[in-house]
Amino acid sequence: MTRAPRDIEDLIDLMARLPGLGPRSARRAVLQLIKKRGQLLIPLADAMQSVAVSARECITCGNVGTTEICEICTAEKRAIGEICVVEDVADLWAMERAAVFKGRYHVLGGTLSALDAVGPDELRIPHLVARVQEEEVSEVILALNATVDGQTTAHYIAEQLEPLGIAVTSLAQGVPIGGELDYLDDGTITAALRARKAM
Amino acid sequence: MTRAPRDIEDLIDLMARLPGLGPRSARRAVLQLIKKRGQLLIPLADAMQSVAVSARECITCGNVGTTEICEICTAEKRAIGEICVVEDVADLWAMERAAVFKGRYHVLGGTLSALDAVGPDELRIPHLVARVQEEEVSEVILALNATVDGQTTAHYIAEQLEPLGIAVTSLAQGVPIGGELDYLDDGTITAALRARKAM
Repeated sequence: MTRAPRDIEDLIDLMARLPGLGPRSARRAVLQLIKKRGQLLIPLADAMQSVAVSARECITCGNVGTTEICEICTAEKRAIGEICVVEDVADLWAMERAAVFKGRYHVLGGTLSALDAVGPDELRIPHLVARVQEEEVSEVILALNATVDGQTTAHYIAEQLEPLGIAVTSLAQGVPIGGELDYLDDGTITAALRARKAM
Repeated sequence: MTRAPRDIEDLIDLMARLPGLGPRSARRAVLQLIKKRGQLLIPLADAMQSVAVSARECITCGNVGTTEICEICTAEKRAIGEICVVEDVADLWAMERAAVFKGRYHVLGGTLSALDAVGPDELRIPHLVARVQEEEVSEVILALNATVDGQTTAHYIAEQLEPLGIAVTSLAQGVPIGGELDYLDDGTITAALRARKAM
């Protein structure tokens, strides 16, 4: 079988390592790039080069940005007293899309996982404890995923923060907006029933 | 809502224009790129830059390569007498994966489409007719997609080539290997029945 020339195959192999693209769709994407050299391929190469130079992790919260301390941590309007703990930057962005939280964040960089040998020190958990001690924090909101690892991590963090005497809360669990009971799993229905509220 | 810094949003917007990636998965891909700056982001930027410089269309067949005439057209081992006509380079690659065709190709660059105002001149069809007249071609195999536009284009090309007195064939239609009748559409079953063969 004749493969595409070396350069192009190398690009396909790299593209196939992106989440959401497999080998077949990476091929399609590369053909598209070559077809749209001026509008897409060259701007994309430039944008990657520039992000490779400029992107960095915020030293305070672990968010991705282009400055030593990210825009959220430096924003004067945002409450200093509330820290929302998320697993990774994608979750931080999801929270920001909802545009309802006005405090600051702490990105763990994953969850505790015995299987993958991820302990608290791999996760910026000690950093969170130090932040709570140093800054004037009144509440830590644990916005971890509702998975086993996420909830294990939430409980571990709650334990670590307990001696510091601040409020530690977590996102409510229940029926998602627009959700139909018939399509929800038993766990969600159980959680929603247990946390039922007066109308 | 706080968005990611300009550089990063620009990269996300460009990534979202790739086929197979939407806005949400482009975000995920960009976070992955930033996380793997050394192993993925920088090599990918370099590979794109290099393809942007080197990639070009073969002047004979329209395949994508890094030379004026592509590897397939210059390969001595490949039959000169057979030309396989495909819609685009992805289809050429699909044919090559099957590793069964030993002739050369002609990439149309699309299909005739009244809706999108694509006529024969947009498609390298005149170029195909010229090739057949100039080269020692004995057979043109139309390997166009089994869609309405693909088949319309195949019929048009067959008409154009008729006066030249060479064999014009097309891929067989029927039950795909591993296909189960129960899951096939009526059109495929009809085509397979009409083209039935003695055992």
